[in-house]
Order: sequence, then C-alpha cells, then structure tokens
Amino acid sequence: MQKPLILVTNDDGITAPGLRSLVKFMKEIGDVVVVAPDSPQSGMGHAITLNNTLSANLVTIDAINGVEKEYSCSGTPADCVKMGLQELLERKPDICVSGINHGSNSSINVIYSGTMSAAIEAGIEGIPAIGFSLCDFSWDANFEDTKEFVQKIVQQSLLNGMPKGVVLNVNIPAKQNEPIKGIKICRQARANWKEKFDKRVNPMGQDYYWLTGEFELLDKGEDTDEFALANNYISVVPTQFDLTAHHTIHQLNNWNLNEH
Amino acid sequence: MQKPLILVTNDDGITAPGLRSLVKFMKEIGDVVVVAPDSPQSGMGHAITLNNTLSANLVTIDAINGVEKEYSCSGTPADCVKMGLQELLERKPDICVSGINHGSNSSINVIYSGTMSAAIEAGIEGIPAIGFSLCDFSWDANFEDTKEFVQKIVQQSLLNGMPKGVVLNVNIPAKQNEPIKGIKICRQARANWKEKFDKRVNPMGQDYYWLTGEFELLDKGEDTDEFALANNYISVVPTQFDLTAHHTIHQLNNWNLNEH
Repeated sequence: MQKPLILVTNDDGITAPGLRSLVKFMKEIGDVVVVAPDSPQSGMGHAITLNNTLSANLVTIDAINGVEKEYSCSGTPADCVKMGLQELLERKPDICVSGINHGSNSSINVIYSGTMSAAIEAGIEGIPAIGFSLCDFSWDANFEDTKEFVQKIVQQSLLNGMPKGVVLNVNIPAKQNEPIKGIKICRQARANWKEKFDKRVNPMGQDYYWLTGEFELLDKGEDTDEFALANNYISVVPTQFDLTAHHTIHQLNNWNLNEH
Repeated sequence: MQKPLILVTNDDGITAPGLRSLVKFMKEIGDVVVVAPDSPQSGMGHAITLNNTLSANLVTIDAINGVEKEYSCSGTPADCVKMGLQELLERKPDICVSGINHGSNSSINVIYSGTMSAAIEAGIEGIPAIGFSLCDFSWDANFEDTKEFVQKIVQQSLLNGMPKGVVLNVNIPAKQNEPIKGIKICRQARANWKEKFDKRVNPMGQDYYWLTGEFELLDKGEDTDEFALANNYISVVPTQFDLTAHHTIHQLNNWNLNEH
C-alpha cells in the first residue's frame, strides 16, 4: 500500500522546533514534504501575497529526518499551501498538517492564526487538514510528549476522513505535573483580547505603539476548548470556512432593506 | 439626540476613492472618525502586527467632508480597528463600517479579505460592523450609485441592532446597464480559487512567482451571494467569528481518539 503523502507547514518558520518535531512524528506515518515560511509569520491571519513576488527554495534543515523534499518559501502560511499544492508537490497530499505552533490558537485566536490559515487553505482545496498548537510560547517547549496524541489525531483523520468543509484546530496544554488526560472534541470558546497599546516616543520625538493585550475569556461553557485545556485535555475544534451565520438569516429578512 | 459615532476603515488605504465615498455617505448619518491604513493592505486577511511597531497620524485628506478626525495608521485593517477603539476614539463607536472595497469580497474571498477582517475585529469587540465591497477593481469605479443602499443598510443596522456574534458582509454588483434590483440576505457560496503561479526568472537567474488565479464557483444554490450578485442584487451575508462546525461535533465524537 502506498504510504500517505503528508504536507507539513507552519507559521513560525521552517526552522522552528515545533515544525521539526511535527516532521519527525509524521515521518513515522507517511511520506513528508515540507513547504514552510522562511521567516516567522505569527499573527498573519489568512494573509496572502498579492502585491509582491514569491519564491521557494529546496533546502535541507536536518537531514536526519529523511524528509522527501523540503521547501523554504518567502510567503505567508496560506501562500505556502497554495504553492505547495499547485507548484511543488508531485501529487495531491492525503493530509496537510500545520504547526506545531509555539503558543495557543484556541478560542478567538483561531482568527489571527497563521497556523490555522494554512490548514484552512488546504481545507478549501478539499484536503483533510489539521492545525496543531502547543500552549507554550517558549522556543524550547517540550514537543516530545505530544507525539502520541498528534499521531493519533492524524491517523484517525486519515482513517475516518474529514467532515466536509471542516479542518481541525488542535490545541495541546503546556506541560504540567501530571500527564495529559486525553483528547476532547470542543467548540470554540467566546473570548477576546483586551488590547493594551504600549505607547513610546521614538528618537525623532514621534509617538509609536506596541500592540499587547490580555486574554479575556467570556465563556463559562464546559464544552469549550478553553475548558478542556484548563483541565489538561487536548482540545479539537472542528473549524469551518463557511462563515455564514445561517441561524440569523431569518432575522435579517425582517429588516426593511428593500422599502423606500 | 446624539448623532451616532461611526468608525470608518478599509484595506485599500486612507486615500482610496472607495473609502472617501463611504466617509461622505456616513457624514449624512452621523459623526465620522476615520482610522485607516496608510498603504494598501489587500489580501491581508486577519493579520495583526505583533513583531513591529505601529503609528497613527492625524491627517486631513479632503477637508470638504467635515470628518471629525482622521488617522492614517501604519498597521493592517485589524490593527486600525484595535488602535481606533483602544487609543484614538473618545468613545465607543455605535457602528464600524469598512470599505467600500475596490473588488469583491463575496463567497470564499471573505477569508482573505482585509476589509472584512476590520469589520470582524470590531464585531469581536461587540460593535455592530459591516464590510462593504463593490465588485469592480478599478480605482475610478462608480461608488455614487451605491449611496442609497449603503446608507439604508447602515441605518437598518443601527435601528434593528446586529444579531449577536455577527457582522455583515455586503457586496455590491458592478455597474450594469440596469439599476441595482435590491438587497438580498444570502449565504456564502461555496467557491475557491484555482491558483495559477506565473513563474519568472529574475536578473540573477533565480525563479520567482506571481500568485494569480481563476475564481471557481462550486455552488448552484440560488440563496448564495454569488447568485444574488450575478442577478444584479446586493448581497448581505451574516458572517460569524465562531468558526466551530457545531454540526460535526457528534460525528467527531465517534472517532477513536482516546483508545490505545
């Protein structure tokens, strides 16, 4: 039987430890091709490059993994997937995995996430896709303990097939004193960021800002990704790219939009 | 009665004719503050600026409009909204309008849209928000004919209140021989882009690419935004930022994720 072809990408850049771990885990399941950004792309959301050129170079990062091919790409995570599918891969991959992100993409963070934008881009193209994130921003975070779970989720996705129009947003709790308790299917928690702009003055006397913020959970549900993570479970949120709020169409049809 | 405070932004940049028209239309409804990017941000999706500084300068673009205040911001559309709400506006706006975009943000384009990311950012902050796009990419597109419809949609939003967790994605057909027929509440059509990478060689002999593509409609529904636009109606899609595919949670719970 042909081994599954796995496209691996991320938003932290091709040398990020989270991606190197994911490549290693995926090599045990299938053939791996990497198309990942040549520099960090955090917070890029679903950006694509329309007003600039793109390039992709065949590279070797850590030959020990025995990856089939590895491309370092000048674009965003969504660009990487588009280029991979259209130009670089010899056949359509069986699955696309993105990450493992250094930091959470749970709840509202999915909106800003380059990791998830890559997965969503693959999903739009009809390819089963999963974004993986570890809730630990540090560059030397412990990815090794996630292996069993990451492989299980990928294998189950290959086995069961992905629901139509859906990609998976997987978040893994940071290492704690006890082992991870298991995997929970969740909904996206309601949350937002309370922005705090750190205002400074540059050497020319002009104001400038750094965007910072505090995460604000607005949801007490016990079926959310935030609840699962807080209780040391891995959260899996089925995430869709049909953004229509179907349940509100009836309500909006009662507005007087077509009367003068 | 206090006039509504309207935050206006876009992704084509603060000098774009589409934004200037929207400002003019909004001045007839309320007090207007503009916080818009200092340069074009098309295709930026929901990018935010995490690894760079931001600045915002008070500017006068076309004083004739009598706008309260106008800020040119170095960031993405989502950054503009964050800065506007947190740092620049004196009170919470009653509504945020983004656009009028030069070009369509219907169907799958919503995912890549800077125009819509600004509206969604405001929606996350609990502010009624609408993204407007005209299906005409040209810089000298005819925005004047959209005035009546744009004002109607904003006024109805202020009057009825926005459904919770929803922002509106409004697309306006390009000028045709007959007048626009009316406004339809729609769902997002299923569609994608068939990418075509235009491969070239630079003066140093290295390959590079331009991302281009062809739009591919995969949906024959007559309740979609694409169908409305093709029939010379304005499409209004209620768009949500809870991306959970709630209907698939049951199915995913049947996967063997927690067995060894």
